[in-house]
Amino acid sequence: MFAEKGYEGGSTREICTRAETSINMVHHYFGNKAGLLEAIVERYSDEVLVLPLKLLSAPVRSAEDLRARVELLVETTLDACLEHRDLVVVVMREAMSPSALADYITCFGAFLEAAQDQGFVRSDLAVDMVTGAIMDRILNQVLYIPSIRGTSGADIHDPDYRHRWCVSNVDLFLRGIAPPTDPAR
Amino acid sequence: MFAEKGYEGGSTREICTRAETSINMVHHYFGNKAGLLEAIVERYSDEVLVLPLKLLSAPVRSAEDLRARVELLVETTLDACLEHRDLVVVVMREAMSPSALADYITCFGAFLEAAQDQGFVRSDLAVDMVTGAIMDRILNQVLYIPSIRGTSGADIHDPDYRHRWCVSNVDLFLRGIAPPTDPAR
Repeated sequence: MFAEKGYEGGSTREICTRAETSINMVHHYFGNKAGLLEAIVERYSDEVLVLPLKLLSAPVRSAEDLRARVELLVETTLDACLEHRDLVVVVMREAMSPSALADYITCFGAFLEAAQDQGFVRSDLAVDMVTGAIMDRILNQVLYIPSIRGTSGADIHDPDYRHRWCVSNVDLFLRGIAPPTDPAR
Repeated sequence: MFAEKGYEGGSTREICTRAETSINMVHHYFGNKAGLLEAIVERYSDEVLVLPLKLLSAPVRSAEDLRARVELLVETTLDACLEHRDLVVVVMREAMSPSALADYITCFGAFLEAAQDQGFVRSDLAVDMVTGAIMDRILNQVLYIPSIRGTSGADIHDPDYRHRWCVSNVDLFLRGIAPPTDPAR
């Protein structure tokens, strides 16, 4: 409902009707409408990002491993966001910062910093800028599906476009972060 | 008003009161509320993007020229978006595609393709993916100022952060698009 009508437009009363519960229950468990939104976003963000987060837990073993892991991370994150597009819409429109997203960005940053220490990522890279750029790219691609389809005809649900999108973006970022001696190919 | 309250929240009546005009005038000149929004967005997008667009008119002369032009383009576009943040908020929140933005992306793509033909950009680059990634990055940085400040304390209005942001992002993208023989440094 929040994704459909916006936070202001989605009324607690209507949510309770659809959820077959009472407003008293919402007040009891979540305090108010803001608390309900917060709880929904926190809970689903945890679920959505649990798999992508796992990919970041082990350190990088080689340049090939870095490439494979970043590829998998981008694909898994993109798919998780596509599957829960409602959540992405609400998080982005209400400019929320669920703790799972903050954790994801922190872990991704730490992962790249460890790869940097091992020499798989160039030493002068501002790691926070790369994680930010990749998140901007994935989230906007999912958020703006209708307008991207309107202007370019492309749709990230289309397997060919999705493949080309993942390959091109991963390639762009991997070349952008590679050490000078490694042309990332 | 649309930036402040959203398209749904901003009433034509209130806009007319603030603009000291009548609803009849809006209907006469713009048809309806959607027509008014469209006209505002088209007119201001033209103004905002006219300067960045000029930077793309001449072809690239060298690798150094490419770097200098992309740097200037990112900075000028970022500043134009910051100066007219209300417009960015409305365009992004309502997922609009003003013609000036479409022109900007087309020109930026043509500029990079010409640079590709001259060998300043790697031949296998998917040019549309780079223009998309750069736009995602700039627009989100301007759109999410409050939540970025909330999570990281960084604010693109701060000259030091703005400088670091521009240098790091331009560097990331230039390395990402450079031909294999040119480490873009």
